[in-house]
Amino acid sequence: MHFLKEFDQKNSMEIGRELHGFAAELYPICRSITGDGIRRTLGMIQDRIPLQISEVPTGTSVFDWTVPKEWNIRDAYIKDRDGNKVVDFRDCNLHVLNYSIPVHATMPLNELKVHLFTLPEHPDWIPYRTSYYKPEWGFCLSHNQLTALKDDDYEVCIDASLEDGYLTYGECYLPGHSTDEVLISCHACHPSLANDNLSGVTVATALAELLGGQDRRYSYHFLFIPGTIGAITWLAGNRETALRIRHGLVLAGIGDAGGFHYKKSRRGDAEIDRAMAHVLRHCGDSSEILEFAPYGYDERQYCSPGFNLPVGCLMRSVWGTFPEYHTSADNLDFIQPAQLAESLRVCAAVVDVLENNQRYRNLNPHCEPQLGKRNLYRSTGGEAIGAEINARLWVLNLSDEDHSLLDIAERSGMSFSAISAAAELLRESGLLSAMPAGADSADAPHAASQTDQLRTS
Amino acid sequence: MHFLKEFDQKNSMEIGRELHGFAAELYPICRSITGDGIRRTLGMIQDRIPLQISEVPTGTSVFDWTVPKEWNIRDAYIKDRDGNKVVDFRDCNLHVLNYSIPVHATMPLNELKVHLFTLPEHPDWIPYRTSYYKPEWGFCLSHNQLTALKDDDYEVCIDASLEDGYLTYGECYLPGHSTDEVLISCHACHPSLANDNLSGVTVATALAELLGGQDRRYSYHFLFIPGTIGAITWLAGNRETALRIRHGLVLAGIGDAGGFHYKKSRRGDAEIDRAMAHVLRHCGDSSEILEFAPYGYDERQYCSPGFNLPVGCLMRSVWGTFPEYHTSADNLDFIQPAQLAESLRVCAAVVDVLENNQRYRNLNPHCEPQLGKRNLYRSTGGEAIGAEINARLWVLNLSDEDHSLLDIAERSGMSFSAISAAAELLRESGLLSAMPAGADSADAPHAASQTDQLRTS
Amino acid sequence: MHFLKEFDQKNSMEIGRELHGFAAELYPICRSITGDGIRRTLGMIQDRIPLQISEVPTGTSVFDWTVPKEWNIRDAYIKDRDGNKVVDFRDCNLHVLNYSIPVHATMPLNELKVHLFTLPEHPDWIPYRTSYYKPEWGFCLSHNQLTALKDDDYEVCIDASLEDGYLTYGECYLPGHSTDEVLISCHACHPSLANDNLSGVTVATALAELLGGQDRRYSYHFLFIPGTIGAITWLAGNRETALRIRHGLVLAGIGDAGGFHYKKSRRGDAEIDRAMAHVLRHCGDSSEILEFAPYGYDERQYCSPGFNLPVGCLMRSVWGTFPEYHTSADNLDFIQPAQLAESLRVCAAVVDVLENNQRYRNLNPHCEPQLGKRNLYRSTGGEAIGAEINARLWVLNLSDEDHSLLDIAERSGMSFSAISAAAELLRESGLLSAMPAGADSADAPHAASQTDQLRTS
Repeated sequence: MHFLKEFDQKNSMEIGRELHGFAAELYPICRSITGDGIRRTLGMIQDRIPLQISEVPTGTSVFDWTVPKEWNIRDAYIKDRDGNKVVDFRDCNLHVLNYSIPVHATMPLNELKVHLFTLPEHPDWIPYRTSYYKPEWGFCLSHNQLTALKDDDYEVCIDASLEDGYLTYGECYLPGHSTDEVLISCHACHPSLANDNLSGVTVATALAELLGGQDRRYSYHFLFIPGTIGAITWLAGNRETALRIRHGLVLAGIGDAGGFHYKKSRRGDAEIDRAMAHVLRHCGDSSEILEFAPYGYDERQYCSPGFNLPVGCLMRSVWGTFPEYHTSADNLDFIQPAQLAESLRVCAAVVDVLENNQRYRNLNPHCEPQLGKRNLYRSTGGEAIGAEINARLWVLNLSDEDHSLLDIAERSGMSFSAISAAAELLRESGLLSAMPAGADSADAPHAASQTDQLRTS
Repeated sequence: MHFLKEFDQKNSMEIGRELHGFAAELYPICRSITGDGIRRTLGMIQDRIPLQISEVPTGTSVFDWTVPKEWNIRDAYIKDRDGNKVVDFRDCNLHVLNYSIPVHATMPLNELKVHLFTLPEHPDWIPYRTSYYKPEWGFCLSHNQLTALKDDDYEVCIDASLEDGYLTYGECYLPGHSTDEVLISCHACHPSLANDNLSGVTVATALAELLGGQDRRYSYHFLFIPGTIGAITWLAGNRETALRIRHGLVLAGIGDAGGFHYKKSRRGDAEIDRAMAHVLRHCGDSSEILEFAPYGYDERQYCSPGFNLPVGCLMRSVWGTFPEYHTSADNLDFIQPAQLAESLRVCAAVVDVLENNQRYRNLNPHCEPQLGKRNLYRSTGGEAIGAEINARLWVLNLSDEDHSLLDIAERSGMSFSAISAAAELLRESGLLSAMPAGADSADAPHAASQTDQLRTS
Repeated sequence: MHFLKEFDQKNSMEIGRELHGFAAELYPICRSITGDGIRRTLGMIQDRIPLQISEVPTGTSVFDWTVPKEWNIRDAYIKDRDGNKVVDFRDCNLHVLNYSIPVHATMPLNELKVHLFTLPEHPDWIPYRTSYYKPEWGFCLSHNQLTALKDDDYEVCIDASLEDGYLTYGECYLPGHSTDEVLISCHACHPSLANDNLSGVTVATALAELLGGQDRRYSYHFLFIPGTIGAITWLAGNRETALRIRHGLVLAGIGDAGGFHYKKSRRGDAEIDRAMAHVLRHCGDSSEILEFAPYGYDERQYCSPGFNLPVGCLMRSVWGTFPEYHTSADNLDFIQPAQLAESLRVCAAVVDVLENNQRYRNLNPHCEPQLGKRNLYRSTGGEAIGAEINARLWVLNLSDEDHSLLDIAERSGMSFSAISAAAELLRESGLLSAMPAGADSADAPHAASQTDQLRTS
């Protein structure tokens, strides 16, 4: 497929505005790792792409974990003695410690305070905090709100339920010529947080939309899941499918103004790692490649030693390194249309590499073929050759069955698109033949050894 | 052999003057990829070294190419209305587009202009242009000559012939103890261009002369050939011989004042690559090692995937990076005796490494042997040891059958000559034994796999 | 064992004063490679640790060497015509060329001068010189002493004996659970030189003392030997034992104020090389890792090709690079208590790595185990995790049987102690199991191939 070429013919500002518009629709919903918030979110994604929604019952064992009770919230507030709501869930859903147990009580400020979370260094911002596995209740508020509270009694109310129910996630599967899969995973469990949640959700949705209309080499598997427990639940129920994942990306925090950061898979030299490094090197923007570390997003689970899947993580600013992270300042202004569109383009470029990366055989391996008689060379000797001819020479020289187009792009320093275009032209001219499918499966032996690991464990 | 030691006893200024003198004899000849120019050139080389000259008929198939018609030129000019030669081949043979088809006609300037090549950025210089495979005629002239032309009619004449004939090349073969070969290749097809042609031709000729009087471990194969089509023709006719090439060098552009550049073979870690990097690191001059790329001189053919020979390319300034390249400014002043002599010395030093690089076995591998009782150590303890003793310790420590002298030189940071001298002394003292020939064949497995490639293709 | 943790609870200034005090006791003795000086030194070490002392007779063949005659000295001086001792061995034992043959004669200054050694660039200092294998006599004196000598006759007397006797060395063997050994070697053959002799001797003695009270995984083998000939003699008589050496360190010059230098073993990637690099990287002080070279201390012998043992060398300032080296200025002021104590701590830290470096198996390799329910995680989500939790995630992620704790420390950038503590906690929590002993023998194949080398040589 010529996915990137097609993508680049589209209006990128329009794409960006569309992405941001979808984020704005999703923003007000109070999501959590279970409950109606994520259910509604998945429904809105389903309006755009074919999405299969799964409901996994509370109590289901998933490896070392158990699917928790389902949490739903209707209202929450703190009222002062005069009945004024000094903290109101309806103003901002971050105000409630996510997964709070229900509470309705009146108590003095000093007793209330152990349940309050603020950010003294950013007195206007509300922090985002959770307590999924320890039964707790609490409120998050701006430090200014806290300091305004008089030493008095307060009525606190969290009208929430924590009951047997389901963990909900969504999958979009786009079959390709091969059953080998590309995984695109993003978490969809954060309430009103734009970059750390909705940037990944909206870009992944748009990527699935774009890929829907393509002839695909690989099958694509998009996951919209609650973080950690969602990835664990999916992996526990889909171990056979996981073995088919040949390349994977976690998308998170790709709407802000920071430069790109790609965190490599645990393997460190997987094709996705090399493809992403190549795309970012040539994308024109500042970018940085990070080594794998076991803390982060859901690559934590995909790259656990029993799976060791070739899954990396694309971010712009890295979680925890920017002040807006996990606060009310990670809002719709913090993500911008142009940034979302550019992130989608990087994803499209990586897909383009994965789809078109293969090995060719030079059918005239002894000496150079005479490009001139095929009008593939300049005719007046003595002057320099251009980049297009140079790309052809690189492809011919390294198409010895051992080098993929990505290998050739890396060694030549040229962009994958230039190398890929040269290979296509040479193939059309009868100078190259494509190696049979499978011969280019750089990661196949890893996949096999995973099978063994899973079988014996 | 102690080739380098002998070389260093010679008068290098005399060597340089002799090299430049030979270049001056060859300079006026109008060479091309076929014809009497290269034939005369080979004859003058044959006056100095034993040269076997081959003539390959027009029309011979050589891999994807065909040996072209033979081109010869007698005269060429552009005359103005008054009969003045405004451009005259007899002034400078670059004036004719090399391989021009014959023409004799009168035409207005604007019609003539499409056949004229100039260098506006160097208005005094004449460019060098060719059209070997597209039937064309043309003139190269200085931009000043062009701007002086009035808008008038001109008589153009190229008295050339392009007829069935031969492609001519020369080989000098110096047999050694082993049939394994060292290839030294240079192109001899450019007209009056000094650095990009004659520097390689003269240094290669002198190297063959010097090696002629030596006891040689390897056999040496010198090629004086037309660029591209000559290398392809030779390889097509000598596939068995090519399999015996264990090390190879293309020599080109080694007379100018620039620092040395060595472009590695496609393999990147061949012994010639390491030997040349070592020699240049220790040669005292600035130098740079370049990665392989498929565009360049005839290493393009030797390093095509079907051959993948361990052949690199030694240059001073790199083609295309200096303004004199492929212009009339690449003349006899652009190459200097001292620079030619130093280039010959670098070649001699590399040959010295290849000839003497072998593995030894330390006959006292447990602890150090007592060098003092053999007068190979300093007698008063407590002071530092010198470089000579240090070289002996390195050779003893690493002569475990796994390390060649070049390995030891690289790891110790000492020069190959220091390490090689230490090994000789230790061998004479009975502390080392040389490993049997063949045991040091670092590249043997590659050669074998080449055989397979050629057999199956 | 928790060796480092215990060590760090001790008073380091007290340790340093104790080390320096022992050095002060040993300092006045006139040691040499044989004789009563080293014998007395070993006796004083034996007062502190269990030491087996061996006496090897003169004339014993040890590989390419022969144990020399035993040298003992009673007195030496140069007297002027008036009977004044202008150079007196009793002032400083460096005054005599070590291993001088006996002499008693009167001679003019110009005849005497060929037997005198001085340091003109440090006119107050006395150099240390030896002549073990060439029968010579001589005096070392300050350059000021030399220039004060009048052109007159002098009586020279060296009351020494060089007779059949013994070469003496000491071994302290501390058995552990495994018969695999850690070698700690230091030379004890220099007369009044503090850094280049006594720093290694005192730190090694203290390390043996400390290890004596521990439960040890490895067996420890401490050698106090004359340099070069002592190591050769020990290796010649202990070839089977040498095969059990899994890690080794030569200690020398570790009392001065310079930053640490660790010279890697000939292998370059042995576990001791990686452990020492890791410890020095995290020790807080400046340090440098040096590549192996065949000149130096007794690693020269341990790393000779027939043994190729994984033995490196720990120094502070490198021999030969500081002016006090091998002079009377390498005295008790040149080594300081704090520096000796810190050197001992580095040794303890390396031992701690070697003792605790093993591989674990993550018993829940699929996805992360739920650390929270085991109180191994923070309970409020949304905030950053600390270094302790991060260490747990690293250990879990890489405990796939392929990675040792040192591998994990290196890849995570965290200290070995942090990683090791996390592993212990996780093991106690039932999340990890230790791999059976032997499975972590990174160097085992090398050891095997050494056996072969020794058998066939």
